Amino acid sequence: MNKIPDSQILVIFGASGDLTHRKLIPALFELFERKLLPAKFLIVGVARTRQNTEEFRQSLLDSMIQNRTTYAIDNPHLTDFLRSVYYIVCDTTRSEAYEALFREIEQLRNAAGIDDNLLFYLATPPIMYPTIASSIEARHQNRSAEGWRRIIIEKPYGSNEAEARALDRLLCAIFPEREIYRIDHFLGKETVQNLLVLRFANSIWEPLWNRNYIDHIEITATETLGVEQRGLYYDSAGALRDMVQSHLLQIMAFIAMEPPATFEPEAIRDEIAKVFRSLRPLSPDDIARHTLRGQYATGTVDGQKVPAYRDEPRVDPQSTTETFAALKLYIDNWRWADVPIYIYTGKRLAEKRSEVVIHFRNTPRTFFPGQCCGNSCNQLVITLQPDESIRLRFGLKQPGTNFEVSQVSMDFFYSSLIETRLPGAYERLLLDAMRGDSLLYSRSDALELSWHFLAPLLESWERDGDEGLITYPAGCKIPREVVDRILPDPCLLEENACTLCNTRRP
Amino acid sequence: MNKIPDSQILVIFGASGDLTHRKLIPALFELFERKLLPAKFLIVGVARTRQNTEEFRQSLLDSMIQNRTTYAIDNPHLTDFLRSVYYIVCDTTRSEAYEALFREIEQLRNAAGIDDNLLFYLATPPIMYPTIASSIEARHQNRSAEGWRRIIIEKPYGSNEAEARALDRLLCAIFPEREIYRIDHFLGKETVQNLLVLRFANSIWEPLWNRNYIDHIEITATETLGVEQRGLYYDSAGALRDMVQSHLLQIMAFIAMEPPATFEPEAIRDEIAKVFRSLRPLSPDDIARHTLRGQYATGTVDGQKVPAYRDEPRVDPQSTTETFAALKLYIDNWRWADVPIYIYTGKRLAEKRSEVVIHFRNTPRTFFPGQCCGNSCNQLVITLQPDESIRLRFGLKQPGTNFEVSQVSMDFFYSSLIETRLPGAYERLLLDAMRGDSLLYSRSDALELSWHFLAPLLESWERDGDEGLITYPAGCKIPREVVDRILPDPCLLEENACTLCNTRRP
Repeated sequence: MNKIPDSQILVIFGASGDLTHRKLIPALFELFERKLLPAKFLIVGVARTRQNTEEFRQSLLDSMIQNRTTYAIDNPHLTDFLRSVYYIVCDTTRSEAYEALFREIEQLRNAAGIDDNLLFYLATPPIMYPTIASSIEARHQNRSAEGWRRIIIEKPYGSNEAEARALDRLLCAIFPEREIYRIDHFLGKETVQNLLVLRFANSIWEPLWNRNYIDHIEITATETLGVEQRGLYYDSAGALRDMVQSHLLQIMAFIAMEPPATFEPEAIRDEIAKVFRSLRPLSPDDIARHTLRGQYATGTVDGQKVPAYRDEPRVDPQSTTETFAALKLYIDNWRWADVPIYIYTGKRLAEKRSEVVIHFRNTPRTFFPGQCCGNSCNQLVITLQPDESIRLRFGLKQPGTNFEVSQVSMDFFYSSLIETRLPGAYERLLLDAMRGDSLLYSRSDALELSWHFLAPLLESWERDGDEGLITYPAGCKIPREVVDRILPDPCLLEENACTLCNTRRP
Repeated sequence: MNKIPDSQILVIFGASGDLTHRKLIPALFELFERKLLPAKFLIVGVARTRQNTEEFRQSLLDSMIQNRTTYAIDNPHLTDFLRSVYYIVCDTTRSEAYEALFREIEQLRNAAGIDDNLLFYLATPPIMYPTIASSIEARHQNRSAEGWRRIIIEKPYGSNEAEARALDRLLCAIFPEREIYRIDHFLGKETVQNLLVLRFANSIWEPLWNRNYIDHIEITATETLGVEQRGLYYDSAGALRDMVQSHLLQIMAFIAMEPPATFEPEAIRDEIAKVFRSLRPLSPDDIARHTLRGQYATGTVDGQKVPAYRDEPRVDPQSTTETFAALKLYIDNWRWADVPIYIYTGKRLAEKRSEVVIHFRNTPRTFFPGQCCGNSCNQLVITLQPDESIRLRFGLKQPGTNFEVSQVSMDFFYSSLIETRLPGAYERLLLDAMRGDSLLYSRSDALELSWHFLAPLLESWERDGDEGLITYPAGCKIPREVVDRILPDPCLLEENACTLCNTRRP
C-alpha cells in the first residue's frame, strides 16, 4: 500500500534554519528508517551560511541529538542517511546565484543517477518566496520535459487576502496549480487525517451529521506556551492568522464538508472549497457580537511566573496583536444552516489542547431526572492533541433503584493501540509531496476564500487597535469575556462540557 | 427521588425454599441497609416446613453466610432486619388452612400497627399458583377496602400459550390486572433497565435506530453452567421456555419498541405489546430454515470434564429437551421490516455472556483499504453481564502514511464508575412491586403474545423429538450448525465480530 516516491532530489531553501533542523530532517530520517524513501534520493540544503556538506551534516546531527530525537543517538543508520544530504552555499536573494546552484544540483543528480525530478521546499522567510520562485523560473527549472518540478510553500501564505492573491498569481504563473504544495502542518497530524476516516469509513455519523441532530460545534486549540522565540513573526501575525486562518478553518472544513465523490485529492479539495464558499460573511454586527480578541498579561503557567505578551522578546511594547481569538460563525448551506460553530484559540492558557466537540441536540422529550440540565447528554469529543482520543458522551442510568441519568463516556485512546507511534506531521506531508499526493495540502481557491472570509475581521481588529482588546492573565482558562459574549452556552466552559453535567457525573 | 413504599406486609409463599433464602431475603436486607423499606414493614414467610420464627430466622442467617453474602457476616444490622421477619406454618395445598394463616397475619399486622396492605409473593412451584390464589380469594384477601393487595408470580408463567392463558384467566378473575406482578428477573438487571435510558435519554440513537441504518441485531445469552440441581424443572422446560420466551424476547422488546408517550409503566407496556404484535409468525418453512435446537454432550468446561445433558441428575436419559436454541425472527413494522433479529442462548457453552449487538449497515461507498471486508465497521455492543459494558466499534485510520482503516472501539465499562455496585435484580423488582411500579413486570397481553409467537416452534420441536436435535460438546463456542444454518453472517462468529475484522485490528 505504501507507494514509494519517484527517484528525486529534495531541494531545501533556508536549510540552515530552525525548521530544517528541527522538523524536516528528523521527518526525513524517520521516512528513511521506515524505508519509505526512494532508493535514488538526495537532499540538497541551500542557504547563505558558509559551510560545507560535512559541516552541514554535523550541524543536523548535533541538532537531532540536542532536540532529543532519541532514535538519532547512536543510531548506526543515521550515518547512512546523512550520506544522502548535501549542502550548497547560495545567496538566494541574488538571482544570478541560481545558475551555479542549479549546475551543482545537476552534477549531484547525474552522479547519483537520479531522474529529473526536483522538489523545492521553501523553508525561508515568506519575503523570499517571490524571488526564489522567479529565479527558479529564470533558470527554466520550473518544469522539466523528462521529469517533474514541485514546490512546497511554508505558511504564512500571505498575511491577508491581497497578499495571498498576489503570491498565488505569481506562483501560478510559474508552476501549474497541481505542483504547488501549500503546507498546513496541522493536516499532517494523524488525528486530523482521521477526521476524514471517522466520517467516511463509518456509517453511523452521516445520518446525524447535520442541522437536524447537531446543536453546535466547537473547534479549539489552546496552548500554554507564549510566543517563545517567534516574537517578531507572531507580533505581525496574531492568533487569527497564525491559527484560525490556516489550521482551524481547515479542520472545520474536514468536519463540515459533504462526502466527496471519490477519495481523490481534487474531489476532496472541491468539497473543502464549497464549505468556504458557504461561510456566512461577517457583518460589522457579527464582528461586534460574535468575535473577541485578547492578549495575555503576566500570570502563572505551570507554577512559573511568566511575562506579559508586550514584554516578550521582539514584541512591540505597545502591541495590540491578539494572542487569543474567538469567533462564532455559520455555514449557510443545507446541511449546516443555523448551526453555530465556535472557534477559539489562544496562547498562554491553562491547558494545551486541540479539540473538536460535536454537541448533539437534546432529546425531544426529557423522561429522566438528571438528564443534563436541558442540554444534550451527547457529545462526540475528538481530541487532536495531546492525549489523542475519541470519546462519545452519553446518558447512562445511574445504578440504583430509580431511573436517574448521569453523563458518562465511551472512550477510545490512541495510546491503547499496539503501534502507538503517530507519524509526525512533516513526515506524512513530505512523503505525500514526494509522492505527488496533494490531498493534505491547501488548494488556491480554498486559501483565498478563507482569507476573504476573515478579511473584514482582520481589518476591523487592525483599525480598532487597543479598543476592544481584552487582556487575560497568562495561565487562565478561557477568558471570562469569551464565555459571556461569544459563547452563551455553559457547555463551552471548562473541559468543553456543561459544568452542571460535570458535577453530576458519577 | 427514592419513593419509599407504603407500610405493608410481604407474605412469601414457599418461604422455606431456595429462592427465598438465596434471592429474596438477601435482596430485602439490601433494601433495609439502604433505608428503602417502609418504617412499618413485616416479612411473613409461609410454608409447610415445621419450624418457628426463630428457626426460620436462623436458617435465613445460615443461608446468607453460607452463600457468602459477605455483608451479612458480622453485620449488626442483620439482627435488626431479621426482627421484622416472621414465619407461619401452613399447608397451602389445603384451602381450609388459610383461615388460620390470615388470622395470624392480621394479628401481626395489628400488633405492628401496619396499614392494610399485603403483597403476596408466590415462590412456590407453579402448580400451586391456582390453589393459593383461589384460597386467598376464598378468605376475601384478594382486595381490601382500606388498603391494597398485590401478587407477585414467579416464572414459569405457564409452559405454553394455553397454560399461560388459563393462569391469566384465573388470576385476572381474582386480582385486578394492575395488581398482578409477573416477575422476569432479567428486567431487574441494571444493564437491562439501562437499555431504556440508553435509547431515550440520548438523542443520537433514535435517528439511526431503524431499518435504514441497522443491518441486523443479535441478542444472546450463553452460559457455561449446565442444569445444576434444576434437572427436573429444566427437562420439562428447555432453553426456549427458560430463556427465550421470558428474558430474551423481553430484551428484544426494549430494543425494538417505539419511544413511549410517557415514561409510565402502562405507556411502556403498550409499546412492548405492540412489538410482540408485529412479530412475523413462524411458518413451517421458517422453523426449518431459521431455527435450531441443540443439546450438550459431554465435554470440557473450564478445564473440567462435564457430563452430557442426558446424564445430568433428574434428567430423562432419553430426553430431547433443547439446551441450546437459536432463531432468526422479524418484526414486521415500519421501523424494523426486513431487519433480521438473531436470538440464541445455550447452556454449557464456552463463555458466560449476555449481550445485545446492534450491527449498523455499511457505508454506501468504500473509500479506504481495510474497511471491514464488506461489513460495517460499526457495532454497538451492549454487554448485559458479566463485564457490564457499552462499546461502540468504529473504523479508525490506522496510524501511518496511508489511509488504511482498522476497527477499534470506544468503551464504557460499568467498573469505571465510582459507585460500581449494581443493585441485584430482585432488589429492584421487589422494591418496585412494594412501591406499586409495574414497569419492569410483564403485562398479560405481552406474555400471551410471546407464547403465541413461540407456539408453532414449541409444538414442532416437541413433535419432532430427536429429529433435528443437534448435539454439541459441552464447552464449545456457538455450535457450528448454527453458524451454517441460521447465521449466514460471519459477524456472528466468536466475539460477535467479523473474524476478518478481528485479525485486522491493531
